[in-house]
Amino acid sequence: MPLSSSGARTIQFWFEFGSTYSYPAAMRIERAAGKAGVALLWKPFLLGPIFRGQGWSDSPFNLYPAKGRYMWRDLERICEREGLAFRRPTQFPRNGLLAARVAVAGLAESWCPAFIREVYRANFAEDRDIADPQVLADLLGRVCPAPRPALERASSEKVKQRLRAHGDEAAALGIFGAPSFLVGPELFWGNDRLEEALAWAAAP
Amino acid sequence: MPLSSSGARTIQFWFEFGSTYSYPAAMRIERAAGKAGVALLWKPFLLGPIFRGQGWSDSPFNLYPAKGRYMWRDLERICEREGLAFRRPTQFPRNGLLAARVAVAGLAESWCPAFIREVYRANFAEDRDIADPQVLADLLGRVCPAPRPALERASSEKVKQRLRAHGDEAAALGIFGAPSFLVGPELFWGNDRLEEALAWAAAP
Repeated sequence: MPLSSSGARTIQFWFEFGSTYSYPAAMRIERAAGKAGVALLWKPFLLGPIFRGQGWSDSPFNLYPAKGRYMWRDLERICEREGLAFRRPTQFPRNGLLAARVAVAGLAESWCPAFIREVYRANFAEDRDIADPQVLADLLGRVCPAPRPALERASSEKVKQRLRAHGDEAAALGIFGAPSFLVGPELFWGNDRLEEALAWAAAP
Repeated sequence: MPLSSSGARTIQFWFEFGSTYSYPAAMRIERAAGKAGVALLWKPFLLGPIFRGQGWSDSPFNLYPAKGRYMWRDLERICEREGLAFRRPTQFPRNGLLAARVAVAGLAESWCPAFIREVYRANFAEDRDIADPQVLADLLGRVCPAPRPALERASSEKVKQRLRAHGDEAAALGIFGAPSFLVGPELFWGNDRLEEALAWAAAP
């Protein structure tokens, strides 16, 4: 329904690298959007400031143990159903700040979607520390022709500001969790709403 | 997969009359379970004690305004898609205590599922106060051959204790919100998980 300036129907995908349910969404969204004929905009942001704005100093899955126990089992079921590898991270949530900066710095590059998937796989299937620059350099090495410059660009003031601007935009849009999908003014929250959001975007 | 003593596959439907997302679930679950060949156990309970156990004195949709704004729009979309009447209640959440007691008292009666749907419709489509005994008497009158005795039974000590026992059972099962669906030991949370829970129950 909403048309971008190029005339394409678009979906914005708001994700945070530490967010569990963003993992299955990130792994299928490019394929699913392509199939639906919907243009995809990747929108990395940080949940920390959003959660702090709600009075939470930690993930609600840690603050509310029953909710957390359910989420881990639910995520396991989802990954099994979708054929995604899954290993419960020994640290949760992991700090996705540097990974988000790399993604922001690379948004216009063709390797970016593959990098995003590598980060999610590292966090939720390989139990690796995505806050570690060495880990990110390794992941970039798999998908990016020039990993070192990409990593260096991630620490520029311009990129830091762009990521903060994403966070401000998310808050202004009423986003309160991840993954979230935005189709025109319509917000959809949660991995299990991706198909509904795409259907909304593709509706005549 | 889990078989009841009668050999039927079963799903437990844990619902609270004040819960918004329980409305679309309650309206279709009997039909959907029948179609899936799954036996249905209605499990009314109160979310208040569960929420208080998480440190909340009100619905999270009131405590976290961004989440609340999203929920009302989302519920509106869901009801439109499912052809359900919807009018945003002028009071939220409404106190579902007496309605839950009537449901508990009537669980073995054939009118109970229709009564449950009448209460949800009153709350979320007609903006009526489901805490008002007169309203409940009216709703019972539409579906129950002897409304007055049913309403009186709801206030018996035995029924009050059974409803409290439901709440204790919900907490012990790890239930933290409504609607929740239980299939054997597997918990599914949220209206949008009903179909998945039924598929789980019907799996060979």
